[in-house]
Amino acid sequence: MLEKSQLVNDMKKLLGPEKVISSKLERYTYTYDSSFLSQLNEFYPDVVVCPMNTEDVQIIMRYAYQHNIPVTPRGAGSGQTGGSVAVKGGIVLDLSGWTDIVEIDEKNMQVVVRPGIVHADLNVALSPYGLFFPPDPGSSKMATIGGMVGNNASGLRAVKFGNTGQYVLGLEVVLPNGEVMKTGGLHSRALKSVSGINLTSLYVGSEGTLGVITQVRLKVLPKPPVRGILLTLFSSLDDAAATVLEVFKNGIIPSGIEILDDSGIKAANKFQPDLKLPEAEAALFFEINGSKAAVDFEGQQVKEIAEKRASSVEWATDAQRMAKLWQGRAVIGAASARVKEGATRIFCGEDVCFPMAKVPEALRRIKEIGAKHNTLVVIYGHIGDGNMHTAPIIDPLKPEEVQAAHRVADDIHQLALELEGSTTGEHGVGFTRSQFMEEEHGKALEIMRIIKDAIDPKGIMNPGKIWAER
Amino acid sequence: MLEKSQLVNDMKKLLGPEKVISSKLERYTYTYDSSFLSQLNEFYPDVVVCPMNTEDVQIIMRYAYQHNIPVTPRGAGSGQTGGSVAVKGGIVLDLSGWTDIVEIDEKNMQVVVRPGIVHADLNVALSPYGLFFPPDPGSSKMATIGGMVGNNASGLRAVKFGNTGQYVLGLEVVLPNGEVMKTGGLHSRALKSVSGINLTSLYVGSEGTLGVITQVRLKVLPKPPVRGILLTLFSSLDDAAATVLEVFKNGIIPSGIEILDDSGIKAANKFQPDLKLPEAEAALFFEINGSKAAVDFEGQQVKEIAEKRASSVEWATDAQRMAKLWQGRAVIGAASARVKEGATRIFCGEDVCFPMAKVPEALRRIKEIGAKHNTLVVIYGHIGDGNMHTAPIIDPLKPEEVQAAHRVADDIHQLALELEGSTTGEHGVGFTRSQFMEEEHGKALEIMRIIKDAIDPKGIMNPGKIWAER
Repeated sequence: MLEKSQLVNDMKKLLGPEKVISSKLERYTYTYDSSFLSQLNEFYPDVVVCPMNTEDVQIIMRYAYQHNIPVTPRGAGSGQTGGSVAVKGGIVLDLSGWTDIVEIDEKNMQVVVRPGIVHADLNVALSPYGLFFPPDPGSSKMATIGGMVGNNASGLRAVKFGNTGQYVLGLEVVLPNGEVMKTGGLHSRALKSVSGINLTSLYVGSEGTLGVITQVRLKVLPKPPVRGILLTLFSSLDDAAATVLEVFKNGIIPSGIEILDDSGIKAANKFQPDLKLPEAEAALFFEINGSKAAVDFEGQQVKEIAEKRASSVEWATDAQRMAKLWQGRAVIGAASARVKEGATRIFCGEDVCFPMAKVPEALRRIKEIGAKHNTLVVIYGHIGDGNMHTAPIIDPLKPEEVQAAHRVADDIHQLALELEGSTTGEHGVGFTRSQFMEEEHGKALEIMRIIKDAIDPKGIMNPGKIWAER
Repeated sequence: MLEKSQLVNDMKKLLGPEKVISSKLERYTYTYDSSFLSQLNEFYPDVVVCPMNTEDVQIIMRYAYQHNIPVTPRGAGSGQTGGSVAVKGGIVLDLSGWTDIVEIDEKNMQVVVRPGIVHADLNVALSPYGLFFPPDPGSSKMATIGGMVGNNASGLRAVKFGNTGQYVLGLEVVLPNGEVMKTGGLHSRALKSVSGINLTSLYVGSEGTLGVITQVRLKVLPKPPVRGILLTLFSSLDDAAATVLEVFKNGIIPSGIEILDDSGIKAANKFQPDLKLPEAEAALFFEINGSKAAVDFEGQQVKEIAEKRASSVEWATDAQRMAKLWQGRAVIGAASARVKEGATRIFCGEDVCFPMAKVPEALRRIKEIGAKHNTLVVIYGHIGDGNMHTAPIIDPLKPEEVQAAHRVADDIHQLALELEGSTTGEHGVGFTRSQFMEEEHGKALEIMRIIKDAIDPKGIMNPGKIWAER
């Protein structure tokens, strides 16, 4: 095993000292992401390097391959599963500074970017062309495209626009041994191809376990000209769920359908008292976009459907009023962090996905789980595809509350599997969910491993993720 | 090597004689698909078996694995690349009889089917629920869902609704050694999951080279209530292409945008004289679907955009008139087969995809290629994503015309690569395009092979496809 000082010196020699971070204090900031579990530990990388071109990454990977050193790619560190944390030490590749837009290819409706570019920045750059990259993670102002690809992120608009993977046309990947591969065609600017095994899709969502994504070719879409927001409240969860199904049944596909349960409504009201959301079992937020005629017509339809069961309904297309209606959803992340004096929101068991028809049962059961472990759990999320975000509210300095939170997360993950859902709808596995993979996938987990071993025979790419230790 | 008679006898013993086809005459019907190259050869399977459940497939694969026998899965045999033809002999799995719909899970907007169900039949079954499976191959009344998944088919509606892969939530796969794997979660009915390496996407488009798909869980969508068709003619190809780009630029995403070039227009008119399409360099067909208001509004917008450059434009939402307008596109497959006395349309070089901005140049170059080799080439396809279908018209009994057709196909494939496109937009590689894979993919082709070897170490799954012989 290589000495750590040797590793640091070699990196400085190979890349120049300005691309290498080695002090303990600075490395500390790489020991965690947004996941609670990473924050409970101190997973120090031995060194952090900041590659700014493909050759840098190749140099690092060749070295790591030769010396069997773990390599963990990292974007913004906004992930909630420890995916970008070096649980086995070694090298963290900080790609967040590598933010180039290589080309906006307007006429072919695609864009080529480096992994560090932030989601919101990409959409700002696309805006003058009337184009946009549709997937919208809640963390738009933080999340990098590399991270979104690595985790196949989706978010608020997945109901209509799907996940990141649907937009990835090709990747440049540095393989574990330092060689470069292009997926989706060496020189392709085609919008469609079925040429060969789909390596692009294989790398999307592989969480940095198969190589380093150094360039992304993304399909982008014309920006819908108009949007509208509908906020509606229900005294029963079942009525909220029935409303969602009836909207679909009428052939309407909103761009997003979000929910706050009663705990979410309380949290939002407490955080921002002028919101004045009425007490209810559920608040639904519909976003509809498209042409003006479509938005007006479909908004009216959704309004009429909601009115059959809702205690209140409001539809708006005016920008200011839309922002006001959406505010409850917009603040929920921050609000859940401050719902209880001396406590905060932690990220664990935070991304379960249920079959749509089982969402009401799931939300009731999650409440029961919280009650059983004496832990408040705020619930919100993407009811349009069953992907729920559950936020345990605890004081992380109280060991008994921490223990309870772990049990809550375990039970929520188990509930997702029991109700024929998934332990993760969009955040990924990282190291925080690897213990559920066997139960979720059975034989398929072995095949995933076979692929991992074939592409990364030395196991240096982001070790300790997806698969539980053997 | 096992005796063929032994193989046949063993299959009859293991599965019952009624599931085994062994006479030469019957096996002959499995020696080809729609590809010209397969029709020029006689690739006899040693035996054809017709599994009707997962256990049947497991029995066959265990046997094939033990005895190193090639296995080629086959659906309708409507493919155009020889993908379902046993170029190395062995066993053909005829899955076309295994057509069960296991479950229409209306509330979770998904359906579970066996591989043999035909696309059109699935949509008929979904219709009473107000649901549909959006990808629409031209061969809707033939193509099986298993084949569509194996080739990641897309077709006429890909502009708005994407490819088959976007709808595949999970698969049951019998692995080369006979074990069963479920992808997308063992028991999942979730609409979203990013749990682990995405094996579902890996199998979509893998053309039967990694295992046998025995069950498919598909996401389905609410059927758009209304549609409209716009037919417009252009005296210049560039005007047609500019119109497509301007439609997108206005934020409109039609469900499909189809083109016939002048050869296609002539072919359609000749086939069906009452069509009376005016002479033009290009005919564009737009399909717009959605709510009534959206269709009316966007149809009007597209009409106005087209009128800036077109020689004629007609927009219809009346069913009969729509059918009439669409007819030119509807008959083109059959029409191109009969455009020239004593000649027919063959399938080779038939599925290239170009960057959208290069479609006019591509169409002109394809004409030049045809002229160079003295071969008429009819062109039509999905201009909304650059995926063009090129139909050489020859007399297959004349060796010089056959030779010319091969050169036309080679040149068209090379053109696709030269213009930064792909050799196949939706039909796949099979054995007819494997010689272009190295040039299209470079290093990535090796990684595809590494995965193939890891999952199918004995190389028994559909050998001779995707990778050229080594």
